[in-house]
Amino acid sequence: MKKLNVAVIGCGFWGRNHARIYNDSEKTSLLAVADVKEEAVKRIGERYQVDQYLDPLEVFERKNVEAVSICTPTVTHADLALAAMKAGKHVLVEKPMTNTVAEAESLIKAAEKNGVHLAVGFVERFNPGVIEALRLVSEGEIGDVILARAHRVSRYPLRISDVGVVKDLAIHDIDIVRQLFDSEPETVYATAGRIAHGFEDYANIILRFPGNRSAFIETNWLTPHKIRRLILTGSEGLITVEFITQEITVENNERRYQPFLETREPLTLELEDFVQSVLGDTPPKASGEDGLMALRICEAALESAEKGQPVKI
Amino acid sequence: MKKLNVAVIGCGFWGRNHARIYNDSEKTSLLAVADVKEEAVKRIGERYQVDQYLDPLEVFERKNVEAVSICTPTVTHADLALAAMKAGKHVLVEKPMTNTVAEAESLIKAAEKNGVHLAVGFVERFNPGVIEALRLVSEGEIGDVILARAHRVSRYPLRISDVGVVKDLAIHDIDIVRQLFDSEPETVYATAGRIAHGFEDYANIILRFPGNRSAFIETNWLTPHKIRRLILTGSEGLITVEFITQEITVENNERRYQPFLETREPLTLELEDFVQSVLGDTPPKASGEDGLMALRICEAALESAEKGQPVKI
Amino acid sequence: MKKLNVAVIGCGFWGRNHARIYNDSEKTSLLAVADVKEEAVKRIGERYQVDQYLDPLEVFERKNVEAVSICTPTVTHADLALAAMKAGKHVLVEKPMTNTVAEAESLIKAAEKNGVHLAVGFVERFNPGVIEALRLVSEGEIGDVILARAHRVSRYPLRISDVGVVKDLAIHDIDIVRQLFDSEPETVYATAGRIAHGFEDYANIILRFPGNRSAFIETNWLTPHKIRRLILTGSEGLITVEFITQEITVENNERRYQPFLETREPLTLELEDFVQSVLGDTPPKASGEDGLMALRICEAALESAEKGQPVKI
Amino acid sequence: MKKLNVAVIGCGFWGRNHARIYNDSEKTSLLAVADVKEEAVKRIGERYQVDQYLDPLEVFERKNVEAVSICTPTVTHADLALAAMKAGKHVLVEKPMTNTVAEAESLIKAAEKNGVHLAVGFVERFNPGVIEALRLVSEGEIGDVILARAHRVSRYPLRISDVGVVKDLAIHDIDIVRQLFDSEPETVYATAGRIAHGFEDYANIILRFPGNRSAFIETNWLTPHKIRRLILTGSEGLITVEFITQEITVENNERRYQPFLETREPLTLELEDFVQSVLGDTPPKASGEDGLMALRICEAALESAEKGQPVKI
Repeated sequence: MKKLNVAVIGCGFWGRNHARIYNDSEKTSLLAVADVKEEAVKRIGERYQVDQYLDPLEVFERKNVEAVSICTPTVTHADLALAAMKAGKHVLVEKPMTNTVAEAESLIKAAEKNGVHLAVGFVERFNPGVIEALRLVSEGEIGDVILARAHRVSRYPLRISDVGVVKDLAIHDIDIVRQLFDSEPETVYATAGRIAHGFEDYANIILRFPGNRSAFIETNWLTPHKIRRLILTGSEGLITVEFITQEITVENNERRYQPFLETREPLTLELEDFVQSVLGDTPPKASGEDGLMALRICEAALESAEKGQPVKI
Repeated sequence: MKKLNVAVIGCGFWGRNHARIYNDSEKTSLLAVADVKEEAVKRIGERYQVDQYLDPLEVFERKNVEAVSICTPTVTHADLALAAMKAGKHVLVEKPMTNTVAEAESLIKAAEKNGVHLAVGFVERFNPGVIEALRLVSEGEIGDVILARAHRVSRYPLRISDVGVVKDLAIHDIDIVRQLFDSEPETVYATAGRIAHGFEDYANIILRFPGNRSAFIETNWLTPHKIRRLILTGSEGLITVEFITQEITVENNERRYQPFLETREPLTLELEDFVQSVLGDTPPKASGEDGLMALRICEAALESAEKGQPVKI
Repeated sequence: MKKLNVAVIGCGFWGRNHARIYNDSEKTSLLAVADVKEEAVKRIGERYQVDQYLDPLEVFERKNVEAVSICTPTVTHADLALAAMKAGKHVLVEKPMTNTVAEAESLIKAAEKNGVHLAVGFVERFNPGVIEALRLVSEGEIGDVILARAHRVSRYPLRISDVGVVKDLAIHDIDIVRQLFDSEPETVYATAGRIAHGFEDYANIILRFPGNRSAFIETNWLTPHKIRRLILTGSEGLITVEFITQEITVENNERRYQPFLETREPLTLELEDFVQSVLGDTPPKASGEDGLMALRICEAALESAEKGQPVKI
Repeated sequence: MKKLNVAVIGCGFWGRNHARIYNDSEKTSLLAVADVKEEAVKRIGERYQVDQYLDPLEVFERKNVEAVSICTPTVTHADLALAAMKAGKHVLVEKPMTNTVAEAESLIKAAEKNGVHLAVGFVERFNPGVIEALRLVSEGEIGDVILARAHRVSRYPLRISDVGVVKDLAIHDIDIVRQLFDSEPETVYATAGRIAHGFEDYANIILRFPGNRSAFIETNWLTPHKIRRLILTGSEGLITVEFITQEITVENNERRYQPFLETREPLTLELEDFVQSVLGDTPPKASGEDGLMALRICEAALESAEKGQPVKI
């Protein structure tokens, strides 16, 4: 079987995980890793015995590299992804796709122009608990969903980030509720604030979807104990998803139940999907358009929090 | 010890409970009950061997009745409370205090004019779990509270009500977050809808309080399994209140814990507070002004849901 | 409808509850209460406006009393029940039925001889969670049950009791596992000890049933937080019963689920069953023989704990 | 820093994990792996690029191998461990240490004679939840422990094993309660049976310790949903240990709490302890004597189940 030749750009927390999974997979050959920090790239390069680069552009020059994961700080995503696609590489960009909506649009155009696949790292889409919850909703298990509530909080005391908590954390839930309601929100209303970080570090976002359905997202970098939870309120029941344990709980009129799901590492499923989209020339589950829309909603939320008014999408 | 002579107007679910508690209390003598439905008034009157009236106004004419609980449908609250106060009776009105803000204002004036006490039946204020949660917050147990989230849902398939779910259920949480933040919300933004009832039967309300603090209230009459929950997100931890079991759970950086609180019937505590306010001539915990403000916020939420814009308080 | 005329002997915790339920029931008329303590009998007698007796024997002399609940200290059960049956009264004795096996046998004989019904107050049999768990087991929901484990602990710091924790608490679970396995244990093995009370205050009992099935009962009067739990281990799943909340949880290969059961006060169901057995002349659910067997197993457990050897039943 | 040169004998589930951890550790060099199955040894050998052997004895002949983990089927433990020690290797044997008490005794003698360290793989000793629970007990957090109850069940439908569930699963809890009570049980009483496997596949064991303290262990290979739980009943509270999530819950008179512990892989801690005992020439936490005593208690439990009588240790 032909293996896809891949490289990982950025050797921080997420880059290390991409490298590990590409290395373990039977469908990929990890050829190279890159990072501007020598120590970081050396550690991963030696671990998997692959080529090390301090300059990502040199990776893109390599003919045999077919696809790259971009796991660098957000503000660098646009330049790196554009360079990679110009060089004909398929690209998976970590979330948030880019720092701005304009940059995201340029990436989508570049992917089209260069005929490459562009995927965005919405890893929570691949969480088995989320997949099962969406499946149950689509089967009518809890009737019509009228509200989705997300709770995504955890403390980042030393977080040095180039985006705020909305683009860092809330974006996951924004992406999931777009899937859930299979539509775009009409308006966004939000409150937000900053207690201990350079950017906003807490936000509460309400998305108004067609058909009088809503989503509410609470997120922050403050609360000590980590929570990653989604509660779907339906006219006939409730589903609670615990992202961390991948458990879901369904409550209806007769009972509360928890199906025992097989746990899987969501990132593995995400990379498998990306690789499959390249090898099979099919769209990835989380496309550039998904990344763009999520970003647009994030920016609308931040604008709303500042103005105190709902913002149309 | 002098006992306060009381009567109960309205012999439905809540009236029956008021009557039972007044009858059991050592501080009150239940003298009379009234209801327009003969069967309802007869059942309670016989049970406690007290006088029965089909016309509440006749109760107010009795000299020896000092205080009344008004537990009738919401739209009748204003007329009955005004008549009772005019007759010099102290009044406890079930929530919502009245159907409209204007009516609530007239009750406050009437109480002042007639020199009687006016209390509103915000029973959740007296829930031991709520009291302990507010105490822990005031002691700084979870740092600064940045968001309060309420979840108050349950199915009322055959609900015949003269108000919608906002004034029926959300009003409890509106009252509690006013206490929690010890201030009034600056703006209210809401989404709401109607699936199976005459009035709105689901609503999602975000209240923006001074200091960039918010409250989010989810309520409906649809979800089959009953939930009454409040989660307070602080900069140093979380507190979850389960109203039904009166349990609270605190999570901070080191541990999750549940203090074992003594359970008490909140309605008993509420009536004790009302009786004490009359006997000791002190303000009740939940005053007419509290009832008015909660109602004002409810109306703002309904207006916001209709206009799609935040409404100032 | 003819009402059964009843009296309650003993006005302590349980007697008060029997009196309340008989008073509320449409099938019974509470005629009298008795207690050697004047204050206790007065409080209940006045509350329900029924005749008060300091001497229970005078109650038994009353022609119009048809049935009695005996809720006095255990050591008095035998004498009182015998006197009542001799006077032709149907008798419900609180658990443990008597202090000794010999006394229990004499009661069964007396009931036969006098042609009256004799029931024993195994209130946990009437717990809706227990009933549903036994129903699920009988339908094969968890395959063959190989072990039942009971956990019944709570602190009684000032307990003045005339029996130890085995006859006071473990007896409930002994009665339930006899029902569960629909057979008598072949042998009993136990460990027990005494830390803070006059009788044994903790015990661990293993019952060996035919077919290589077992029950393990942990009980004590020491552990601060009250637990009343039964876990049934089956070849195809588990059922956990929480007696206090009446909730059951079933776990099988695919899921964990909790049916939402209607809660009922078990004592009400127990007294309804007793009254029905008298009015319909049918055996009560918990008979004198059940009381005798449970007591026999208790005594075997205490003997085993002392000898360090299993004791045959 | 000098690294300890190690080899792993047996490349099944546990052998693979030993190999992974030795390979990742900075204190060990994995030199060789052995298994009678060529495919198994090849997979691990290639993964970590170490020498592969089909005959373990050839590994023991290598001078540079200083210590070995023996992860083969139980019946082979004795011969392999004896050969390794004779060749001067330090030995960590997976649990159960050997198939019989006599074999275990021979291993202890051989370790002494050859001057090597002998450790037994009681991995649950190294579970952070267990360590914290024992620490809390030793600090008196729940008063005197009067009963330890273990629940260790899970389905092994296709289990081909050379020992039964007592030596496979219950042995973990036997080892832990010996630590907990810091003494040996005086007697063992057990029931056991066989439903779907070659050896006993369920057992219920009660251990009677000095001072009237007991342990009860429920174990089986039948129950579909996996449970690994230990509940310690103290005179002043309860501690529940969930081995799988490593969470502990403490309940006392005032509250229930769960300290947030750092999770660690217990096997990593176990191997670190073994390596440290060799490098520092100190006894391992779980010694040959611990392995022997646990085995002796297992055999007593099996004997008791057969005879229906308690067996002295």
